[in-house]
Amino acid sequence: MTAYAQLEGRFRSLGALKEAAGVLHWDMATMMPKGGAEARGEQLAALEVACHEMIAAPDLAELLAGAEGEELGAWQQANLREMRRAWRHATALDADLVAALARAAQKSEMVWREARPANDFKATLVPLGELLALVRQAAAAKAEALGCGPYEALLDEWEPGGSVARIDGIFEAYAAFLPDFLERVLSHQARGGPRPVLAGPFSKAAQEALGRRLMKVIGFDFEHGRLDVSLHPFCGGVPDDVRITTRYDEADFTSALMAVLHETGHAMYERGLPADWRLQPVGQARGMSLHESQSLLIEMQACRSPEFLTFAAPLIAAAFGGEGPAWQAESLIRRYHRVERGLIRVDADEVTYPAHVILRYRLEQAMLSDELPLEDLPAAWNDEMERLLGVRPPDDRDGCLQDIHWYDGAWGYFPTYTLGAMTAAQLFGAGVRAVPEIPGALARGDFAPLMGWLRAEVHGRGSLMTGEELLTRATGRPLDPEVFKQHLRARYLAE
Amino acid sequence: MTAYAQLEGRFRSLGALKEAAGVLHWDMATMMPKGGAEARGEQLAALEVACHEMIAAPDLAELLAGAEGEELGAWQQANLREMRRAWRHATALDADLVAALARAAQKSEMVWREARPANDFKATLVPLGELLALVRQAAAAKAEALGCGPYEALLDEWEPGGSVARIDGIFEAYAAFLPDFLERVLSHQARGGPRPVLAGPFSKAAQEALGRRLMKVIGFDFEHGRLDVSLHPFCGGVPDDVRITTRYDEADFTSALMAVLHETGHAMYERGLPADWRLQPVGQARGMSLHESQSLLIEMQACRSPEFLTFAAPLIAAAFGGEGPAWQAESLIRRYHRVERGLIRVDADEVTYPAHVILRYRLEQAMLSDELPLEDLPAAWNDEMERLLGVRPPDDRDGCLQDIHWYDGAWGYFPTYTLGAMTAAQLFGAGVRAVPEIPGALARGDFAPLMGWLRAEVHGRGSLMTGEELLTRATGRPLDPEVFKQHLRARYLAE
Repeated sequence: MTAYAQLEGRFRSLGALKEAAGVLHWDMATMMPKGGAEARGEQLAALEVACHEMIAAPDLAELLAGAEGEELGAWQQANLREMRRAWRHATALDADLVAALARAAQKSEMVWREARPANDFKATLVPLGELLALVRQAAAAKAEALGCGPYEALLDEWEPGGSVARIDGIFEAYAAFLPDFLERVLSHQARGGPRPVLAGPFSKAAQEALGRRLMKVIGFDFEHGRLDVSLHPFCGGVPDDVRITTRYDEADFTSALMAVLHETGHAMYERGLPADWRLQPVGQARGMSLHESQSLLIEMQACRSPEFLTFAAPLIAAAFGGEGPAWQAESLIRRYHRVERGLIRVDADEVTYPAHVILRYRLEQAMLSDELPLEDLPAAWNDEMERLLGVRPPDDRDGCLQDIHWYDGAWGYFPTYTLGAMTAAQLFGAGVRAVPEIPGALARGDFAPLMGWLRAEVHGRGSLMTGEELLTRATGRPLDPEVFKQHLRARYLAE
Repeated sequence: MTAYAQLEGRFRSLGALKEAAGVLHWDMATMMPKGGAEARGEQLAALEVACHEMIAAPDLAELLAGAEGEELGAWQQANLREMRRAWRHATALDADLVAALARAAQKSEMVWREARPANDFKATLVPLGELLALVRQAAAAKAEALGCGPYEALLDEWEPGGSVARIDGIFEAYAAFLPDFLERVLSHQARGGPRPVLAGPFSKAAQEALGRRLMKVIGFDFEHGRLDVSLHPFCGGVPDDVRITTRYDEADFTSALMAVLHETGHAMYERGLPADWRLQPVGQARGMSLHESQSLLIEMQACRSPEFLTFAAPLIAAAFGGEGPAWQAESLIRRYHRVERGLIRVDADEVTYPAHVILRYRLEQAMLSDELPLEDLPAAWNDEMERLLGVRPPDDRDGCLQDIHWYDGAWGYFPTYTLGAMTAAQLFGAGVRAVPEIPGALARGDFAPLMGWLRAEVHGRGSLMTGEELLTRATGRPLDPEVFKQHLRARYLAE
């Protein structure tokens, strides 16, 4: 057997163990009773150790070097490149640091779960400080292994090849663009008068049936996936068994429904990954910003388009027995295009969402480099919020305690949300140029033209090329934040 | 670190990986969409390989030998003994044979799934023959490693230390006892006249609510477990997160309900295993016949007792809005004490069930030793059925195609059902002698006295001693099949 063939065998097993962990994570969030948490922690830790031992096996470096001298096809070469990338990340940290990080993250997250409802940021200081110290160690070790800065080294885990200089430029420009644009959108919106009221309650069963109906419209295959309930919506499982979730509010169906469509976008990406490369590194999704681009393309670009909402309005009305103007397409469009200066990221609209991300991006870099002491985080958060969006959180619950990410140790993740939104706009625009019938088809609830293009240009490519190469091939240029702004101007100012 | 301490560390990880596989198996039977089957197969195979590599690690034999020279407490000694037992089983077969067995079993099972509804035994001949040839190889290898006969070596996996000579004696005696006893039971029963009809339909929701209610009565803790639906009822998951299933028939609630109570018995055993020894071999259940004894003790001994059914009757009637004599305790007792000469094992009552097992026990030995060619299995089955129960299957669907076990490669499992039934009777009798308030408490829906005794005498002991030692400690003697017969005489002939 060639070195490359041996590597494929090992990474196949590794991929299968990671899939097993994926299913267990899904179960933990959807099915597991509380009392199963400790045992599940042990199961996941044992799986992680088993995975780490496979990838850090002493002879793996030799196999990688050996395979690099072998004659390989393009996909195999890309697969080998991704194997090496995974190996670099895995071997950058020693096992003790990995274990200490996992323990510190669990402790910090547990404290946060109580501190958030109690609005008690101080309670998190010690565990978050301990966690951050370990994250710094990990960032330094990865920076050395990857030959980049510490923050960039963390970012690379989520956004392979992501560049801080590039993101800085994009985010600064958006922060400069936002204040004036937001003012104009809000006054434009105010001229529309108050929105008609959608009177509930909206039963969970009806919401779920509607969600399933629209998932099928998008192309979700229930022979290869499920829809369930969890505290926060997510897309989990594995490509051949993709499991998305939402949570229902009987007083308002609109948010749960969009969450379903958003997660369906993630799911379609997973399902569309190249089946010939299942379990291999090259068969995996190409980073989190591209993943988010697929959910936002479906949610924001396709499903919040006037075309789709016009198609969906009668189905939505029928699902809840709704009648009258509030249930007309026009009213739904206004509802789903609502913009406001809010405090909470997960409730934010697409215009203000980047401000939430830019704030976190700035603060997490400052924390990592020790420029911002943890004690000063709440004030820094509130000041930055006021600067970016003109609103100031009344307390930390609606400020720096609102997201799990830092308390869970996930530095370097936040920027992918906004990179994803911008990528989505650029991909959707290019898709419509390439396949002009896409908008008309969406107006008939036909996603086949859009999905066909995404399958060919994005999903089916897995990790064959870098995210930037993929975007350039699909749209003719690397990420161009102007496209996102054009989209916002068109949608929110009708320009 | 001592050799023993190192072993505990390794077996802890191994135990956690096995738990992970347990959860994935549960998911496969309850949640997984069809299209996820192939990916799940890969995940489980990768987990199995990872487990096998851990237990067959080259230095494990040295650690076992080293630990045997160390000073250990009683639980540690037992744990070491169980580690060696697991090691012996795992290393008896080489990896190629394990993989070939898994593949052959999957193939044979798939053919069986189509052949059974089509009543096409011939279709199974080739895959079953290939599988059986591999099972024979495995039996021979294990027989050499364990120093016993081939069938006993397979039996040992399910029933540690199980003895063919002992089971032969017990089963022959029951086969001799049954014909006359069954005649007497049937004529005794005929004198009661026809049973009143319970008129349905019985909604799944009402059945499930009733099942949950009675699970709580028994002591099932929903913070540490779930009830779901699957094709065949089973108890899965892990001790701190036990997951039982049933399947509902809206025309007849009685079978689904008893399945819930049966699986709750299994679940209580898992939950009661010694928490200090979680994930260690000594913390696991002591073999399948003891496991089955716990489900049958709850189902057959406790929940089909007149005491419990008298308590449950009004709850059952209320659950379905039932009124009149059919819903009285007396009618329910008659229903749940119904005996008949049936063809199907899983529908059999406790009097005739052992005949189904004895038949399989005889035939699986004959097949393994090649005395019974597979082509002759259907006829041999039907002849044996006629001899034991006086009924002859009209076709193989209701004959030798009815159970998955052989087609799945599980030789040596069947006897544990009847050993479990006999053990249940003996344990229940001893429990009532030791704690005389048990029957009175059951009549009030109070399982605490029974469960307290079981926790102390069975559950909490894990695999500290052999099954026979455990039974002897708890009841004063090894398995005595007379106790089961006394139970049958008392219940079915009021003797």
